[in-house]
Amino acid sequence: MKQITSSQNPFIKSLVLLQEKAKARKQSGMFLIEGIREIELALKGKYQLVTLLFVPELFDETNVKKLVNNNSEIEIIEISREVYQKLAYRDTTEGIIAVAKTKSHLLTELQLPENPLLLVMESIEKPGNIGAMLRTCDAANIDAVLVADAKTDLYNPNMVRSSVGCLFTNQIAVGTTEEIIEYLQKNNINFYSATLQNSTSYHTQDYTKPSALVVGTEATGLSKPWREKAKQNIIIPMQGEIDSMNVSVAAAILLFEAKRQRGF
Amino acid sequence: MKQITSSQNPFIKSLVLLQEKAKARKQSGMFLIEGIREIELALKGKYQLVTLLFVPELFDETNVKKLVNNNSEIEIIEISREVYQKLAYRDTTEGIIAVAKTKSHLLTELQLPENPLLLVMESIEKPGNIGAMLRTCDAANIDAVLVADAKTDLYNPNMVRSSVGCLFTNQIAVGTTEEIIEYLQKNNINFYSATLQNSTSYHTQDYTKPSALVVGTEATGLSKPWREKAKQNIIIPMQGEIDSMNVSVAAAILLFEAKRQRGF
Repeated sequence: MKQITSSQNPFIKSLVLLQEKAKARKQSGMFLIEGIREIELALKGKYQLVTLLFVPELFDETNVKKLVNNNSEIEIIEISREVYQKLAYRDTTEGIIAVAKTKSHLLTELQLPENPLLLVMESIEKPGNIGAMLRTCDAANIDAVLVADAKTDLYNPNMVRSSVGCLFTNQIAVGTTEEIIEYLQKNNINFYSATLQNSTSYHTQDYTKPSALVVGTEATGLSKPWREKAKQNIIIPMQGEIDSMNVSVAAAILLFEAKRQRGF
Repeated sequence: MKQITSSQNPFIKSLVLLQEKAKARKQSGMFLIEGIREIELALKGKYQLVTLLFVPELFDETNVKKLVNNNSEIEIIEISREVYQKLAYRDTTEGIIAVAKTKSHLLTELQLPENPLLLVMESIEKPGNIGAMLRTCDAANIDAVLVADAKTDLYNPNMVRSSVGCLFTNQIAVGTTEEIIEYLQKNNINFYSATLQNSTSYHTQDYTKPSALVVGTEATGLSKPWREKAKQNIIIPMQGEIDSMNVSVAAAILLFEAKRQRGF
């Protein structure tokens, strides 16, 4: 088995770039996954692993082999603690990191049931907020997450981390606002845009038919096409001193109201 | 007007301690508030300001005087950018910081309406989660937040920050789990404990009468008294791969269901 003990090793340096640069992830089509739970969820979500790196003192080799499960295309490399610390984005000592292939996330590849429930997020900037929403979408087991006019790539390590593996458990498609609206219209999915303008309280609407809930940034809100073409603009009543909500909290309130109406 | 330009000034050093040490906050009964919006909300919430420090190049002196509003007990100090950067916890350039007195947050001081809705949070460790919940509690305009067996003091700068001033807009009481349960029982407030054990789906319960929703940590859940003495243990159905939710997201789903039932 190959061993790498120096963080100056060129291959390790190329992996550090995958953690640090969206461009490196895009060019190579690769990204890193830390932690056994996350790697297992990625496998379950049919992500293709290329390399598994583990620290023998921290992670049992027999468990590495279980993960690989006779897939001879996955290279296994022993690394030192020093190399692990160089690669690990999170402050953990699990001692296992995978290199995996990114997915394409095309709208045309989405597979939806007859009466889908979707979340659309437009131009969200903070990876932590996207990760938190993916976690909620997993809990609610909605049918797909559509990322409109993305401000960050899905494989940003902070997003992988904050999604606690739900990046891999959700069906996700990426596109422009225009493309996604066209997709929703073509598929007869009504969309409800969370916005302050011309909006009515979210709980008065019926989400039991094919529906997409649309959220945007706290700072600028949703763009015009979402507000003008929505079946209905909706609002979560704000009854205190503060006039905005964290977007991931708002998305959770909306999605679970839809789930409640659908009888979970 | 007094001016301080050195971050080595003993008074400034004592303020740095207020940012860094819970013990310093407890002993002095003081804490720091950054940002005009937060300071205004603190004044609205009847927090007593002791000192206002501002950077003349960043914050207009006439606005300092508006804040003080002829209250001669508030000392105003001009500080340099260097001193401001030493004191500021957040990465902002607003140029205004207040020293304020902490409140006692006694259960006996709570003022509740006839049909109150409350949130109880037990042993929450991350200030960011408490701050996020306070923000949601403000949005829902609930009647009080009860902090049981606190793991962090309310004036931790990360909590002040993440609450975006909602630390000041909510009525908050702190106590042990035992004290808070006794308080709820004495005041005939039913409580509903979010837990995995012997629980029923949250949306089947009626929160239109005096109610408290109780949440605990993701790691260990609620302690036995909450689970055993609840009117009902409740659960948010988890339908994906992941078996837990961020506590602030869970609290938001529960609180807004209660609000929905109450007609907002």
